[in-house]
Amino acid sequence: MSLIVQKYGGTSVGTPERIRNVARRILDTRAEGHQVVAVVSAMSGVTNRLIELANEVTGESEPTDREMDVLLATGEQTTIALTAMCLNSMGSKAVSLTGAQAGIETDGVHTKARISNISPSGVHELLNDGNIVILAGFQGKTPDGKITTLGRGGSDLTAIAMAAAIDADLCQIFTDVDGVYTCDPRVVKDARKLEEISYDELLEMASSGTKVMQSRSVEFAKKFGVVFEVRSSLNRNSGTIVREETMSMESVVIRGVSLEREQAKVTITGVGDHPGTAGKIFGAISEANINVDMIVQNVSVSKTGTTDISFTVHKNDIAKAERALQPVLVDLGENVKIDAVDGIAKLSVVGIGMKSHSGVAAEMFAALSNAGVNIEMISTSEIKITVTVAEHQIEEAAKAVHAAFELGDSPIKER
Amino acid sequence: MSLIVQKYGGTSVGTPERIRNVARRILDTRAEGHQVVAVVSAMSGVTNRLIELANEVTGESEPTDREMDVLLATGEQTTIALTAMCLNSMGSKAVSLTGAQAGIETDGVHTKARISNISPSGVHELLNDGNIVILAGFQGKTPDGKITTLGRGGSDLTAIAMAAAIDADLCQIFTDVDGVYTCDPRVVKDARKLEEISYDELLEMASSGTKVMQSRSVEFAKKFGVVFEVRSSLNRNSGTIVREETMSMESVVIRGVSLEREQAKVTITGVGDHPGTAGKIFGAISEANINVDMIVQNVSVSKTGTTDISFTVHKNDIAKAERALQPVLVDLGENVKIDAVDGIAKLSVVGIGMKSHSGVAAEMFAALSNAGVNIEMISTSEIKITVTVAEHQIEEAAKAVHAAFELGDSPIKER
Repeated sequence: MSLIVQKYGGTSVGTPERIRNVARRILDTRAEGHQVVAVVSAMSGVTNRLIELANEVTGESEPTDREMDVLLATGEQTTIALTAMCLNSMGSKAVSLTGAQAGIETDGVHTKARISNISPSGVHELLNDGNIVILAGFQGKTPDGKITTLGRGGSDLTAIAMAAAIDADLCQIFTDVDGVYTCDPRVVKDARKLEEISYDELLEMASSGTKVMQSRSVEFAKKFGVVFEVRSSLNRNSGTIVREETMSMESVVIRGVSLEREQAKVTITGVGDHPGTAGKIFGAISEANINVDMIVQNVSVSKTGTTDISFTVHKNDIAKAERALQPVLVDLGENVKIDAVDGIAKLSVVGIGMKSHSGVAAEMFAALSNAGVNIEMISTSEIKITVTVAEHQIEEAAKAVHAAFELGDSPIKER
Repeated sequence: MSLIVQKYGGTSVGTPERIRNVARRILDTRAEGHQVVAVVSAMSGVTNRLIELANEVTGESEPTDREMDVLLATGEQTTIALTAMCLNSMGSKAVSLTGAQAGIETDGVHTKARISNISPSGVHELLNDGNIVILAGFQGKTPDGKITTLGRGGSDLTAIAMAAAIDADLCQIFTDVDGVYTCDPRVVKDARKLEEISYDELLEMASSGTKVMQSRSVEFAKKFGVVFEVRSSLNRNSGTIVREETMSMESVVIRGVSLEREQAKVTITGVGDHPGTAGKIFGAISEANINVDMIVQNVSVSKTGTTDISFTVHKNDIAKAERALQPVLVDLGENVKIDAVDGIAKLSVVGIGMKSHSGVAAEMFAALSNAGVNIEMISTSEIKITVTVAEHQIEEAAKAVHAAFELGDSPIKER
């Protein structure tokens, strides 16, 4: 008998009929002889409706965070009750627990609280009494009993943290995709579902466009060594196991290819090459809550001793970035200019194997060149290489790189 | 500075705009220098939608009570958050509390739990910090942390119990009527709003058709001596104060006239007059969950030593009552017959003053006789006299009795 934590997202529990499907799935797991803790999200659409209500009662003002948490927590509370009573109606012992009831303690940062402690004795007791435990994702309580929510990706985090706290044998994250793929199957036809991937690889892929899970939950799993499986709630296919890297993982050079569209490149030219400049620029960008990804700075080449700094942002953030940078530019001197262009996309190859294999970058660049794709910016980490290309070329770029590293079901050997 | 508990029902908080109105009303009370605890119900319609969802996921089976409570409690939790954030947006310090957070402990009888204890220290602390406390009605928790609900009229009960626990100076029950009237103003044009009424009088009026509040909350208030006011959330008129009887109350013979339509009379004839018969009959009725009100049995008059027993039920319960009684009738002998007729109504006069005044019944009967209304059944308690009349005559009966006891704004002296 294993102890399994399962997580079902808002779409999986979006209607009464879907809740019945989830209940049947839980029962199947139980019938295989396992103990089950199922973490559920708010039914899809519910959270948005609650936010609308909040905006209607508060008018011009922002709703207060403390009360927003009390409000949003009702979404998951509704789902746990419905799921548990559904299981009861199918003749099974099941009980619901809110985050607070399950002993999930957080700090007091409302709307984006961090889990500080989990007291799992109550959950263990219920499991030992033969119950299936239906646990509200996304929520917890402060030590003094205030209701908190965990922010984006919070239900995944609940599942992984609870799996760590009760020392579960496996944590299954049910979603609407079959697992993690070598590339987006809508772009690369022969993209292959991965049987396993390391935490670090999934993190790098998540940060470069493969949106399977929020990085935060993966980081938590990595920190506490929680092995989890990403799989589909729509079929019975096995998914992708995410775990600490193994020897066999390292023999694979490239795990996958990620792509991210709708990017823009912002270049600041004529920047004096002295300490503190970059800090000022990205301080301003960060204060404006703009997500920056690639940052590239060349060594000074101009006779005037100045350099250029480029970075990428989402194209919708261009105007915001320019506004945020205006005061900094004035500060940096009159020759400093800002230039922003959209219509670019990012392409990344990720794999822990590249740590011990040289020549990966060269191989990637050659593949792109052979496909007639021009590279604009390059940025590398230990297990990832990212380039930007023209957005209209991203699909052929992805196909070329995917094929070059023989990631598909029917590897194309010749290049 | 007084400490005031206010209660707003589901209709008063039924839309975002109405929640804003309630918030303004609370702010006005605060501006008068009072501390306020406001108990709110689920927005009207929400509870029914949750019940529908529950029925959809459980299909043929009844939803389990434990999970029904977890589900229904989200209704009030939504309202407290919205009301508190609305007050925040108006610049006021307000915090929400669920029943569990407010320290409302109940027994474990899900869906109709009884309050066993309230630990008010948290509420006091918040009030002393200058907060308005917005408290979820209708809900509590068991000592081991399960969510419970209090059943029908539960939000009134929450308000009155919390008023007792924090020793409030006044408890205001806001509703959609101006207070308690001498009679239903839709029937008797000159019906007068009462300035005050005793707990016992309100209980008798509630049990005989004047549906201002559930008896349960009034009984709780009586037990703990909580003075409360029933008043309208739609205007600023003062309401009716409900309290222990006073000397001045006793000088009024009749406080009000209640009427209840759609009644049916069930008569069982030929019943052998020996011990246990009535117990069998009303045991069967009670097991079928049928509400019985008046029960009348005459002393045996027939030569065969049998008697008749009559009682009233709602006309919709006739078939159910007949079904429930079939096995009992067989048991009681072959001469026993059952006869049920609808088309009757009940008329009651209520007043603690009648304890010390004789002749009230005679005066009532005379008034009905003068109005040409025939009396079918009569039943009396210490502070109430109830008769049944033909349903089509109930309005003239009520007017005649209301006038006879000079209850209107312009008393009619001559009879």
